[in-house]
Amino acid sequence: MEFPSFMEVLDFIGTFAFAISGIRLASAKQFDLFGAYVVGVVTAIGGGTLRDLMLGVTPIWMINPMYLICSGIALLWVILFEKKLVRQEVTFFIFDTIGLALFTVVGVEKALGLGFPLWVAVIMGTITGAAGGVFRDVFINEIPLIFRKEIYALACIIGGLFYGLFNWLNVDLVLTQCLSGFSVFLVRILAVKYHLGLPRLKGEDCENS
Amino acid sequence: MEFPSFMEVLDFIGTFAFAISGIRLASAKQFDLFGAYVVGVVTAIGGGTLRDLMLGVTPIWMINPMYLICSGIALLWVILFEKKLVRQEVTFFIFDTIGLALFTVVGVEKALGLGFPLWVAVIMGTITGAAGGVFRDVFINEIPLIFRKEIYALACIIGGLFYGLFNWLNVDLVLTQCLSGFSVFLVRILAVKYHLGLPRLKGEDCENS
Amino acid sequence: MEFPSFMEVLDFIGTFAFAISGIRLASAKQFDLFGAYVVGVVTAIGGGTLRDLMLGVTPIWMINPMYLICSGIALLWVILFEKKLVRQEVTFFIFDTIGLALFTVVGVEKALGLGFPLWVAVIMGTITGAAGGVFRDVFINEIPLIFRKEIYALACIIGGLFYGLFNWLNVDLVLTQCLSGFSVFLVRILAVKYHLGLPRLKGEDCENS
Repeated sequence: MEFPSFMEVLDFIGTFAFAISGIRLASAKQFDLFGAYVVGVVTAIGGGTLRDLMLGVTPIWMINPMYLICSGIALLWVILFEKKLVRQEVTFFIFDTIGLALFTVVGVEKALGLGFPLWVAVIMGTITGAAGGVFRDVFINEIPLIFRKEIYALACIIGGLFYGLFNWLNVDLVLTQCLSGFSVFLVRILAVKYHLGLPRLKGEDCENS
Repeated sequence: MEFPSFMEVLDFIGTFAFAISGIRLASAKQFDLFGAYVVGVVTAIGGGTLRDLMLGVTPIWMINPMYLICSGIALLWVILFEKKLVRQEVTFFIFDTIGLALFTVVGVEKALGLGFPLWVAVIMGTITGAAGGVFRDVFINEIPLIFRKEIYALACIIGGLFYGLFNWLNVDLVLTQCLSGFSVFLVRILAVKYHLGLPRLKGEDCENS
Repeated sequence: MEFPSFMEVLDFIGTFAFAISGIRLASAKQFDLFGAYVVGVVTAIGGGTLRDLMLGVTPIWMINPMYLICSGIALLWVILFEKKLVRQEVTFFIFDTIGLALFTVVGVEKALGLGFPLWVAVIMGTITGAAGGVFRDVFINEIPLIFRKEIYALACIIGGLFYGLFNWLNVDLVLTQCLSGFSVFLVRILAVKYHLGLPRLKGEDCENS
């Protein structure tokens, strides 16, 4: 057995935090253990799966069982520490943001590696980071949070653009990964700390087919 | 014209029952005939389609028109026997469970045949059996039933594991198919008869992005 | 830079109208600018993306950035002309119907070009035209409009069948495109003008797993 790389540790942390978020929201809606697990899994791997289907490759979780195992550990965690989870709120927010940053970088790299242009790669990074949460909200029958609350997907887009910029400037790969991931992290942290959201359109009440 | 095989007859029965379930729920939500048909089709073939997209092959219904024709017959059936459907409840439950069992076996075999490991095959069997009902519930804007009610997807998982076990023991293929399908059937029947569900997590009211 | 073809102009108009419909409905639900843009994009390209995934080819919007740019222009349009949009209602209805007609023809042709039989092509045309609106309604947490209101998807099916008929009669390609597209347009316009819908099943209140 090999020792996991730093990226693998971050991937585990991100998957864990994403799964926890899905499991908790599903529990609040009276889902049973299986339902909660499925929502946790979908939150964690939904974005990567959609990305891989669009890129035309086998979804990552079908190649590496880590994602399903990690979601199972998240389910156990919620069962065991149910009452202490509220006190872990800040930790999970940090983990979730690490996941967002890492998933974005992974998505951007995968698309670029398959020969897609940067603008597709930025979208794939954003889908990897943000689409799982959209699927989660569809399953629990809520309007997706990321379309209404603090900046989330925009952090992925900014991180993806930084990746492209550093890449274009021939910055070292590891440094590019760290800096672009850190930019996602920073934008998201600042957005939540200062309640930064995007403006809304003053919606009419229209019915438009 | 060839005489249909036993498996094809079961496949028809399962598709029919799944489509009926979608059409009836859509009708209860005031969908028109087209909407009801689409929800019926999606219930019947949604799981197999998601499986095939993930496995990287052409969705089965695009190769064999039987699934769409069978869903059309289901629509006719609901139109003709609208008032008698409630009395057919038990029959449809049996048909639905036959479908669940068969779809699971078909999904497991397809994934194994494409060279995926057993744990992926079990998930593919479960997706084939259970994902159509999830899509149906998303379309009619309800929280997916299988995440909250009697054991459903777990029956698929158990059946898939039995398939792997018998396969590993070098049991004859037809016997493996029958036994693992029967285990799905049995678990589901028992779950409904004795109202067996999985426990629920005591959900907090949390908002977690 | 080349001058855009007539088809490309129609494609732009259709994408624009579809995106506008998504953006307006998202705004009415208090989505922020990013959320409104995503719903606009999904309305415009969701159908084509699902079609391409099923056909096993790279989604069109990943090859041609026009669709995302056009949706961005639609977002700007809604921001700038917010109060005048109601007066543009008829124009948008015409644009939306042009989009429906064109998307249907494009979907039918793509499937036929990849060697699929006509019945698959008709469904792919319908998915191209109608599925984006279904995704839109799932995202804004409403029951899909096209399952309950005036004839919409049926117009695509009729147009697809006409395409097959003219093709079979060896009618000239451009004429086939125009006539089948026009049939979609006409059916949809008549359906809205005379409030033509499909009948509904008298739904029972049933719970059917």
